[in-house]
Formats: sequence, C-alpha cells, structure tokens
Amino acid sequence: MTYVDIVTALALLQFMVFGFRVGKARGRYGVAAPAIAGNEIFERYFRVQQNTLEQLIVFLPALYVFSHYYSPLVAAALGAVYLIGREIYAATYVKDPKKRELGYVLTALPVAILLLGGLVGAIRQLK
Amino acid sequence: MTYVDIVTALALLQFMVFGFRVGKARGRYGVAAPAIAGNEIFERYFRVQQNTLEQLIVFLPALYVFSHYYSPLVAAALGAVYLIGREIYAATYVKDPKKRELGYVLTALPVAILLLGGLVGAIRQLK
Amino acid sequence: MTYVDIVTALALLQFMVFGFRVGKARGRYGVAAPAIAGNEIFERYFRVQQNTLEQLIVFLPALYVFSHYYSPLVAAALGAVYLIGREIYAATYVKDPKKRELGYVLTALPVAILLLGGLVGAIRQLK
Repeated sequence: MTYVDIVTALALLQFMVFGFRVGKARGRYGVAAPAIAGNEIFERYFRVQQNTLEQLIVFLPALYVFSHYYSPLVAAALGAVYLIGREIYAATYVKDPKKRELGYVLTALPVAILLLGGLVGAIRQLK
Repeated sequence: MTYVDIVTALALLQFMVFGFRVGKARGRYGVAAPAIAGNEIFERYFRVQQNTLEQLIVFLPALYVFSHYYSPLVAAALGAVYLIGREIYAATYVKDPKKRELGYVLTALPVAILLLGGLVGAIRQLK
Repeated sequence: MTYVDIVTALALLQFMVFGFRVGKARGRYGVAAPAIAGNEIFERYFRVQQNTLEQLIVFLPALYVFSHYYSPLVAAALGAVYLIGREIYAATYVKDPKKRELGYVLTALPVAILLLGGLVGAIRQLK
C-alpha cells in the first residue's frame, strides 16, 4: 500500500497547490473574500480547485477499495494517470475552459476504472 | 467490510451521476464554464451535486469509524438509507428546492447516527 | 488509532455545525436555495463551510497516512491544533474576512505537516 499512500499524498499536495493559486488570483484579479465571482480568470482558477475537490472525493476512496480487492500497484499506476490528467486539466482550463476536455477525461477515466473495479471486486467477494 | 465497501462505491457512483447531470445542464441551460450561476434550473442541479459533496465528506469517514467500533452490517444498512435519501433529495430539489426537506433528513439522519455512534464507540474504547 | 478516530469525528461534527449555520443564515439573511450569493454575511458563513470542506479533504487522509508511518498520538495532537484553528477561522471570518489569517494558518500548518510527514514516511518505506 506504500505506493498508494504516495499517490494519495501527491494528489493532496496537487490540490493544495491549486488552492494556493486561488488565493494568489484573489489578489491579482481583485476578488476579495467572501466573493467567488466577478473576474473570469479568477473564476477559472477557482473552478479548477473546486472540480479537483469533486474528483478527489471519488478518487481517494476508490483508490483504496480497488487496492483492497485488486492490485495496489495497478491502483497506483491509475493514480499516476490521474495526477498527470489533473495537471493538463489545470493548465488548459486556465488558458481556455473550452479546451479542458483532454485533462478531464484523463482524470475521470482512471477514477471510473478504480471505482467500477472496486465495486465489482467487492461484489465478487460476496459469493 | 465488504458491504461497507459496496455502499461506498454506490454512493460515489451516485455522486458521479449527479456530476454528469451538472455537465449536461450546462449545455441545456446555456451556462458555460467557469460560470456556476445565471440559470435557476442549472443552479439546482449544481447545488444537488455540491450538497452531496458536503454530505459525502462526513458520510464516508463516519461509515468506516462506525463499522470499526460497531457492526459493519448496521453501518451498511444506514448507508442504504443514505443512498435512498439522496435519490429523493436530488429528484425533489430539481423540481422545487422548497421540497428538499424529506430527502435531506433521510441523508442527514443516517450520517448523524454513523458519526455520533462512531464517536461514542471510539470514546468508550479509551476506558 | 482511537485518538485519531476521535479527532476525525470531532472535525466532521465541527463541519456539520458550520453547515447548520449556513442553513440558518439562509433564513436570517433571505438567501433562498439554490442561490449562494446576494448577502455578504450569508456568503461569509457559506465560505467558512466551503473552505472547511477544502481543508477536510486533505486533513483526513493526511491524518491517517501520517498515523500509519509515524505516531498516531502526534497525528491526533496536530489534529487538535487543526480543530482549534478552524474555530478561530470561523469566528473571525464571519466578523471580518480580512482577519481570517491566524485561523487559516492554524489549520493549514498542521495539515501541511501531516501531509508532508506522511509523504516522507511513505517514501522512506520504499528503500
């Protein structure tokens, strides 16, 4: 499970970096808390962080359930794809939200495989 | 813990479906990213997803802590109530946000029982 | 791990309380669902809850990874700092968002220590 823990920590670190960028964007584009709208570029940084939160809440439990019923190494490899996909997602979304598809798919796909794999693994255990 | 893992995977799958509906509502109601407001119906789909995220962050850890100190089977049964409650919540919220109470209670109640049960179980362990 | 489970349950309970306050603020400041903006004070309560969600998604996994590679007792102590920091954050943010720094640092710092400690612990295990 060590590889899975490392992937977990890297995914959380990545999310914290996205959060720091939102804080910096508040200053640069003049969006004072508690506002979360008012400047298009700020909103892009904010949505990158929020969408990553929505992915993480599925990714992390799915990673561990998949690891439990299948291979932790395969889980960690799928997690590596997720990490790269999120970097692409963040970079493209900030430039142009319409070009976020590739990065989105490269995170949603490993997440879906981990989740469905974990579900099937658990159900097969019941027999 | 197999039943608990299955409930976990189903709750995450449900959340992903709520997320896909937000994506579809973006197109149908003309709310392009990064905006998250501007059309009332889109905002309902968005709030269903966001509120489910707020529930999941409590539900999943509480499910496992409760399972650890009490019965995984009781935890999974409370999880089944959560799943049904969320379906009712999503269906009613999109029709009329004022009618979201029943679905909300049917998710918040099992979550509260899992959380407080887990807390009491852990504290009793200390003695 | 009992102390870690207690800290987990307390952090989730704290988050649920922040959520109830958002619900009450909806009524008091006249912000009906699905809106999440329109009144500055309501938005402060809302942002306290949302920012706590963003912290929790990192805090909880980091707490367990750190516990696994180092001491659960040190993890729980860092978790206690997080809990106090969040209370300060919530109290100051609602009064004046500009004064949220201290509370923010007192949560982000233990979270960062747990996360980086857990990552280093896992990487050292690989050798």
